[in-house]
Amino acid sequence: METRRPTNPAAEEILGLYFPVLDHGFVALVDYMGSDEDVERAARVSYGYGTRRTSQTRGLIRYLRRHDHTTPSEMVELKFHCAMPIFVARQWIRHRTANVNEYSGRYSLLPLVYYRPEAEQFQAQTPSNRQGRGGDPLTELHAEAIERWEQARRQSSENYEWLVGHDVARELARIDLPLSVYTQWYWKIDLHNLLHFLRLRVDAHSQYEIRAFARVMAGMLQRVAPLSFEAWVDYALAGKPFSRGELAALRKLVAVSDGGLEARAGRLDRAALEGCGLMPREVDELLEKLAPPPPLEDFALDPAAARPAEEFARRMEEAVPRVDRR
Amino acid sequence: METRRPTNPAAEEILGLYFPVLDHGFVALVDYMGSDEDVERAARVSYGYGTRRTSQTRGLIRYLRRHDHTTPSEMVELKFHCAMPIFVARQWIRHRTANVNEYSGRYSLLPLVYYRPEAEQFQAQTPSNRQGRGGDPLTELHAEAIERWEQARRQSSENYEWLVGHDVARELARIDLPLSVYTQWYWKIDLHNLLHFLRLRVDAHSQYEIRAFARVMAGMLQRVAPLSFEAWVDYALAGKPFSRGELAALRKLVAVSDGGLEARAGRLDRAALEGCGLMPREVDELLEKLAPPPPLEDFALDPAAARPAEEFARRMEEAVPRVDRR
Amino acid sequence: METRRPTNPAAEEILGLYFPVLDHGFVALVDYMGSDEDVERAARVSYGYGTRRTSQTRGLIRYLRRHDHTTPSEMVELKFHCAMPIFVARQWIRHRTANVNEYSGRYSLLPLVYYRPEAEQFQAQTPSNRQGRGGDPLTELHAEAIERWEQARRQSSENYEWLVGHDVARELARIDLPLSVYTQWYWKIDLHNLLHFLRLRVDAHSQYEIRAFARVMAGMLQRVAPLSFEAWVDYALAGKPFSRGELAALRKLVAVSDGGLEARAGRLDRAALEGCGLMPREVDELLEKLAPPPPLEDFALDPAAARPAEEFARRMEEAVPRVDRR
Amino acid sequence: METRRPTNPAAEEILGLYFPVLDHGFVALVDYMGSDEDVERAARVSYGYGTRRTSQTRGLIRYLRRHDHTTPSEMVELKFHCAMPIFVARQWIRHRTANVNEYSGRYSLLPLVYYRPEAEQFQAQTPSNRQGRGGDPLTELHAEAIERWEQARRQSSENYEWLVGHDVARELARIDLPLSVYTQWYWKIDLHNLLHFLRLRVDAHSQYEIRAFARVMAGMLQRVAPLSFEAWVDYALAGKPFSRGELAALRKLVAVSDGGLEARAGRLDRAALEGCGLMPREVDELLEKLAPPPPLEDFALDPAAARPAEEFARRMEEAVPRVDRR
Repeated sequence: METRRPTNPAAEEILGLYFPVLDHGFVALVDYMGSDEDVERAARVSYGYGTRRTSQTRGLIRYLRRHDHTTPSEMVELKFHCAMPIFVARQWIRHRTANVNEYSGRYSLLPLVYYRPEAEQFQAQTPSNRQGRGGDPLTELHAEAIERWEQARRQSSENYEWLVGHDVARELARIDLPLSVYTQWYWKIDLHNLLHFLRLRVDAHSQYEIRAFARVMAGMLQRVAPLSFEAWVDYALAGKPFSRGELAALRKLVAVSDGGLEARAGRLDRAALEGCGLMPREVDELLEKLAPPPPLEDFALDPAAARPAEEFARRMEEAVPRVDRR
Repeated sequence: METRRPTNPAAEEILGLYFPVLDHGFVALVDYMGSDEDVERAARVSYGYGTRRTSQTRGLIRYLRRHDHTTPSEMVELKFHCAMPIFVARQWIRHRTANVNEYSGRYSLLPLVYYRPEAEQFQAQTPSNRQGRGGDPLTELHAEAIERWEQARRQSSENYEWLVGHDVARELARIDLPLSVYTQWYWKIDLHNLLHFLRLRVDAHSQYEIRAFARVMAGMLQRVAPLSFEAWVDYALAGKPFSRGELAALRKLVAVSDGGLEARAGRLDRAALEGCGLMPREVDELLEKLAPPPPLEDFALDPAAARPAEEFARRMEEAVPRVDRR
Repeated sequence: METRRPTNPAAEEILGLYFPVLDHGFVALVDYMGSDEDVERAARVSYGYGTRRTSQTRGLIRYLRRHDHTTPSEMVELKFHCAMPIFVARQWIRHRTANVNEYSGRYSLLPLVYYRPEAEQFQAQTPSNRQGRGGDPLTELHAEAIERWEQARRQSSENYEWLVGHDVARELARIDLPLSVYTQWYWKIDLHNLLHFLRLRVDAHSQYEIRAFARVMAGMLQRVAPLSFEAWVDYALAGKPFSRGELAALRKLVAVSDGGLEARAGRLDRAALEGCGLMPREVDELLEKLAPPPPLEDFALDPAAARPAEEFARRMEEAVPRVDRR
Repeated sequence: METRRPTNPAAEEILGLYFPVLDHGFVALVDYMGSDEDVERAARVSYGYGTRRTSQTRGLIRYLRRHDHTTPSEMVELKFHCAMPIFVARQWIRHRTANVNEYSGRYSLLPLVYYRPEAEQFQAQTPSNRQGRGGDPLTELHAEAIERWEQARRQSSENYEWLVGHDVARELARIDLPLSVYTQWYWKIDLHNLLHFLRLRVDAHSQYEIRAFARVMAGMLQRVAPLSFEAWVDYALAGKPFSRGELAALRKLVAVSDGGLEARAGRLDRAALEGCGLMPREVDELLEKLAPPPPLEDFALDPAAARPAEEFARRMEEAVPRVDRR
């Protein structure tokens, strides 16, 4: 269709394409409002579309992000259609600055589609941060876990079908479905809050399953607002905060001189670092920040990986129980 | 303890008391900030605590609420500790203007406590609004449903214990727990947004289980800010909005005359009401609004119904799997 | 440009057109996301664009609005560019659920453009609601007021020019500009929150000057989402809430019988109405609600009334002080 | 009064004390909910008040802040009564996550109290960040500026008195009052959002006048939640973010070895730093971060500096025009 709104060819290319995530989930960008130029336009409160050089837009956007001038990036909006397991949805919904419409299990029959973790993501509780998983995959346990899950899910599906088949209220019939069942929603958010969501959810400490969604959404954002995306990678994703104590330590090793930086000879061992006011855990974190960084993640989306909406629609439709109400 | 903050004896009386809700849930008011007088003080932007007559405070609070001057009621805040089934938590969390800290299933082992609907709430899907339950309890089905649920829950508990017993990451072990498992959180909200929450969740179209929580919280609010509560009952809970078409219908039957109201003789049948621009469904809704009202709900809390925090803490603690990590 | 996003010809027709408001202000719709169909799509969480009959969309949208199912209408977003006097901006900004980027008086020189009330809006303090204006225009006072204002504004402009001419920091130079000076901003909001803003700001109790802006924005919304707009007029703008006491009074005059409404013979005078629990002020409000309604406002926008962005840009640009920094 | 709520003696000591800010403004902490222990309690979702060692609370609070686990700090709430010039109020109100009730110039007569900058804050536009002030005070200009302002303010006051004296609507009479006139409000915010506000508004790039308010509020927070305050100083206020390019530069000068940090011999001049992907402006920013830090600000409040509420109330009251309505 013809529009006079700001339009972005790279975003149009993937608009409405459904990208698979996990075994049965998806993310689709279904609408967007604005792009990098609109961030600039809001920051300058300018009239109409002028002709700016991209280098100027880039410089401004980087400046804004670096200095926490975040309001202009609220002027861009993205809308997604997503399907994810309920335990992922429960983490996702904690981001309150978005608009959301979820499929209603009170009104509609639920598709009985469950998430099944792959063997390589089947890991032990990690002792380090005490809330995630880590280490080698528990390959041997995986097979038994899957078997246990499959059995429980068969029973769960059967119970749900039995209940709705007897016309028990759907809001009750669903209460014993497991958290691994897929739900879906429309989710709309502005660029500023999306970047915040992505920073937390692309992070390695985030649960693997929600990270899988965040990574695809990062790729979509990269197409909607590439300069904002790049600034986010450089300042937020691959940048790190240093505390007062960490700065004190750094300043013992690096001096500002003659408009440049100079390494002072010397070494700070663990005790010296703690002497800068760092707790043992903070020392570890500081060393990690200065160790060689992991390679930058590549979020680029391949449109060929997408599948048509109809395919997911049909798959979900087929998983809805067929009931003859008695 | 001694404080110079605004303090409310009726609220103090129930502070920290744990009120049971459903079979294993609870709500406790754990802190509050301000009361009706603080709504007034904010509306007047006054200095310190003057001596106002309660009748003046009442009149102002009713005026504010009637005319959508809602910002003064944002000046009162309540904090709750609650435990509820996950399917209830999922409805509750949709109210985004609250602060929430939920028990983490990634970090901690979950108590294996499940919600079991009573026979009298076990009803069929209601045909009228298509998203709730209604009609006579399905007493015969109930026994079989419970049996099916119990069986599935035994398996679910066993699987969870097996997984965490083998040190599988907790964030994975939990994914097949059903939505009927209890979770808990701290939930903090201002008076204005709490009243909005309560209006939607005390409503008969809301799911029975979340309504049970909302009713107890209404009783707590009644103690924290009794005049705001009363105004809410009169203007929101027991009041009704009339549309342009409904007003047109009313004006055909009722005239304003001599500073009073006078019934005009006459009758509007269904066709006449539709002629005022109402859709068939709206005609039903109009008749419902003017029919004799149900008795006002009594939300008053009996402190004797509360139980000590420790009792719930112990019960939850006992339901956490004992695991020897292998 | 070509887009695959939902597009709305009636909105496109006015996109980027600058509509004058007051003497020097404007509102322009500069972008939008979605329309009525997207409200429906979100409510149904459906895949892609189906073919729905408009009558179905209309029925659903009216149902949603009537029953406070407001989240689907958060899925439509509008972005405006507006210029308004600062005292209007101060009322406007109280709506916190919008995104805003205002012209910066710390960074840029301000255009010295002032709002001058017309004689017919120059009225006395109204005794009734104690916070607005009313009664006949104070025509005789108006001329002297304008003269006083003009004189003060000349001095204010001169002082600002003198200060920035001497390179005094702009953030200081501006502090004695009056609240009648125009500012401008980008303002972005979702449909649900816009409707709330409009209901409060189109209302007769709102200050005339902000109402002038709200009325133009209502006309823009009418083009972006006509069915949502229509439902808002019928249920919010021209509808009225009735309290518990008011309903009690109504039920004494109107009975539900045989699927219709019937006027009971009788009359409720002031005392009888107060006997239903209404305060004197509430009796007045009830009579006002049932009196013949004012004619419906017509918010339709005439694109011919708009002016090109460049014209406003030039006018503002010309009002910026020319300074040779000394 | 007696309360069972969490109570904090250091906060109680200043509760309701009015601390002067600028020439006629003030900030008073009028209520608070919770303290550091409540942040911890929310993070652990624990029952009742246990006995924790302060060192554990401190460690947890620092961990939460360092790792962006910000929701527990939303569980503490502070309420302030403040009076500030309107141009300050306009910056302040941009923080949307607070509750606010402002003195109404539509309803009430405004006190004619104006802010007058001191000579030492009367500075030139700064060329560096292009939006603030800097350099030596413009002492000679100051006297003339004050004279010009005083003259304009006399006229502004006289016009306001003339208008309200003739019963012109207050909402109109006020429109030519300057932005330097004082207004006042109640302002309530949670700890997390207050810390965000303070970080932006205590910052040297913030306008001097709002900084003066932020500094007093920081001192109040220090009494309400000292451990959260300390963590904020160490991680946010006196900490700095480093971008991907800055980290690359640092890693060329500092190596992680044997559980400690070691300076590598060497120097990065401006060109080398730009070679790490930094724009010229970013090089300056990096050098600034690693230069010797300014001394830590001391936000500690002296209760002796406070004045009784009545004093401010009387002063404001006296500045309200005495009008005999003609």
